[in-house]
Amino acid sequence: MKKIRIAIVGFGNIGKGVLSAISRNPDMKLTTIFTRRPQIVFNQLRQTKGVGNVAVKGLEDCSRIDSADVAILCGGSKEDLPVQGPLFARLSNTVDSYDTHAEIPRYFRRIDRIAKRAGKVAIICGGWDPGLFSMMRVLFDTVLSKGHIFTFWGKGVSQGHSEAARKVDGVLDARQYTIPIPKAVRMVRSGKTPKFTARQMHQRLVYVVLKAGADPEKVKRQIVNMPHYFKPYDTQVLFISAQEMAEKHSKYPHGGFVFGSGSTAIGNKNILEFSCRLKSNPEFTANILVACARAAFRLQKKGKKGAFTMSDVPLALYSPFSDDELRTRFI
Amino acid sequence: MKKIRIAIVGFGNIGKGVLSAISRNPDMKLTTIFTRRPQIVFNQLRQTKGVGNVAVKGLEDCSRIDSADVAILCGGSKEDLPVQGPLFARLSNTVDSYDTHAEIPRYFRRIDRIAKRAGKVAIICGGWDPGLFSMMRVLFDTVLSKGHIFTFWGKGVSQGHSEAARKVDGVLDARQYTIPIPKAVRMVRSGKTPKFTARQMHQRLVYVVLKAGADPEKVKRQIVNMPHYFKPYDTQVLFISAQEMAEKHSKYPHGGFVFGSGSTAIGNKNILEFSCRLKSNPEFTANILVACARAAFRLQKKGKKGAFTMSDVPLALYSPFSDDELRTRFI
Repeated sequence: MKKIRIAIVGFGNIGKGVLSAISRNPDMKLTTIFTRRPQIVFNQLRQTKGVGNVAVKGLEDCSRIDSADVAILCGGSKEDLPVQGPLFARLSNTVDSYDTHAEIPRYFRRIDRIAKRAGKVAIICGGWDPGLFSMMRVLFDTVLSKGHIFTFWGKGVSQGHSEAARKVDGVLDARQYTIPIPKAVRMVRSGKTPKFTARQMHQRLVYVVLKAGADPEKVKRQIVNMPHYFKPYDTQVLFISAQEMAEKHSKYPHGGFVFGSGSTAIGNKNILEFSCRLKSNPEFTANILVACARAAFRLQKKGKKGAFTMSDVPLALYSPFSDDELRTRFI
Repeated sequence: MKKIRIAIVGFGNIGKGVLSAISRNPDMKLTTIFTRRPQIVFNQLRQTKGVGNVAVKGLEDCSRIDSADVAILCGGSKEDLPVQGPLFARLSNTVDSYDTHAEIPRYFRRIDRIAKRAGKVAIICGGWDPGLFSMMRVLFDTVLSKGHIFTFWGKGVSQGHSEAARKVDGVLDARQYTIPIPKAVRMVRSGKTPKFTARQMHQRLVYVVLKAGADPEKVKRQIVNMPHYFKPYDTQVLFISAQEMAEKHSKYPHGGFVFGSGSTAIGNKNILEFSCRLKSNPEFTANILVACARAAFRLQKKGKKGAFTMSDVPLALYSPFSDDELRTRFI
C-alpha cells in the first residue's frame, strides 16, 4: 500500500508530537518539515532515531510542498495559522488546530474558498478542543434534543494564558493552570443545569518567575486584573524560582469534560459525559492531527474539496482500519 | 421548510419513544405507524395528545410506506429486524437498532445489497450500544493509536437477559440488572489495562416473580447456570412479589462507560472516557434513532445509497442545525 506522505509545517511542541505520532501510524510517512529555523531542525533530526529521509526546508520554500499529500500545520492560531492556513491550502491538502473560537466561522469561509479553488481538502480546528470536544457538543446537543451542554477545562496548562502572563512587565517566565471548580463539576454531573458565571466554573493558578528587581505586588496586580484572561476569574499568583519552574512545570498536562444533560419528551433525564486526561496536551493533539491528515487524504481521493471541521467527516475516515474491520472490531 | 416524514415500524417501548421524540424535533412529522396490532395502537393514539393525523396500518401493508421519507424500525434484533430490515430497505430509507454484535457484518452486507439496489439509505445499529458507544470505540482507537478500549454497561436493565430469565420454568416475571464491578472501573479509570474475564467486569442481579408452586431453589439453579447469559458471571437471584416488581422495576434505566487508554509514542499516557446515565433506555435510544432518520434522509438527498453505521456518517448530518450554526455554536 502506498503511504500517505506528510509535511509538517512548524516544528514546536505539536510539530515534534506529529513526528513521533507518524512513527505509530504505519500508513503514513514524513517527507518534509517546513520551519523558520531549518538549520537547527536539521541538526535536531540528525540526533533523533528512526526519522528516515526527511527534507528540512524554510517556510519561504512552501511551493515545494508537492512531494507531500497533506501538510499538517502545527503553528499557533494568533500569528501563524492566519498566514500559513491560506498559504498552504492553495498548495496542498491541509490540517490545522485553529482555536480562536470567535473567529472560526470567518477562518472557515476563507480557507473553504481557497481550498475549493485549488481542489484541495482542509480540515481545520483539529485537536481536542476545538476537535473532539466540538464533536461531543454537536453529538450531545443532537441526541439530547435541546439538552444543556457544559465544557470544563483542566486541570492543565493553558498556553494562551501562560503567554499572556509572560508578557507582563517584570515576568521572566510564567505557567498558567486552568482548574475546574469541583462544586460546579459535581452540580453538572448530578444533572443540574445552572447558569454559571466564568468565575463559578474555573479558577486560574499562575506560577511566575520574576525578573531581577521586579516588584511582586505590582506583577500580581497586573496579572489578576488583566481583562478577558484573568479578571473574570479568581486568580492565584505564586512566585517560584527558575529552577522550580524547570523541574516541576516543564510538561503540558491538560484535560477536561463535556457534559450534556437533557430530558426526553416524556420527562426522563439522561446525562452524557466525555472526559480526557492528558499527560501531554501537544502529543495528544498531534495524534488527532495525524488522524485528520488520513481523513483529508481520503476525502480528496473521494473527490471532495474545501474546508471541513471534524464534525463534517465520518468517523470511519479517521481510522486506519477498513470499514469491514471497523464493523467487526468496534460496532 | 418541508418536514421529514417518518414511519414507525413496531410500537413497543422504542416505538413509543420515537413518537414522543418526534414532537421535540420540529423538522420531522410522523405519518404512519406499522404494527401487528393496528386496532389497539389506533385506540392508544386517540388517547395521546398532539399526535395529529397519523395512519395506523398492519405490517402486511408495508408496501404503502411511500408516504414516508424514512421508516424507523423499532423491533427487536432477534425476531423482528432480520425480517423487517430487508423488507423495508427495499421500500424506503430505514433506520434500525440492530444489536446482535456477532451478526452485524452479515446483517450489514445483506441490507447494503438491498438498499443499494433500491436506491435507498439504511442506517443500521443506531442507539447507544451499538451506536454512540461504537462511535467512541472507533474514535478512541484512532486518536490513541493502538490504545486499550474497555466497555462497561450498567447499572441498568438488560432486556435480553430479563427475557432469558423469564423463559425459565416457574418464572412469572423477571428483571435483570447488569452491574459494572467498581474495582474494575476504578482500575481502568486510573489508566491500568488488565485482561479481564467477563466475571471481573460485570455482575448480574435478577429479580424474579415466581409462579404459584414453583421451587425457588430449582429456578435459581437454572438461572445462574444458564450458559452465555449467566454462567460466566456472579449472578444473584432475588425473589419478589408481582406488586414489588410493578412498583420498583417498571422503568428501564441503563447506562455505561467506554474507556480508552493509550500512550503517545513518547510514552505519555492519555485517558479518554465516555459515559451515559439514562433514566430511560428506550426513550434515549429513540432520540438517537430520530437523529439517524434525519441523517438517512440527508444522505439520500446527497445521492448516497446502501447501508451505513453511525461511524460512516458525519456528525453534522445528525444535527438539526445548519453547518454555519454548528460552527458558531459548538466548534
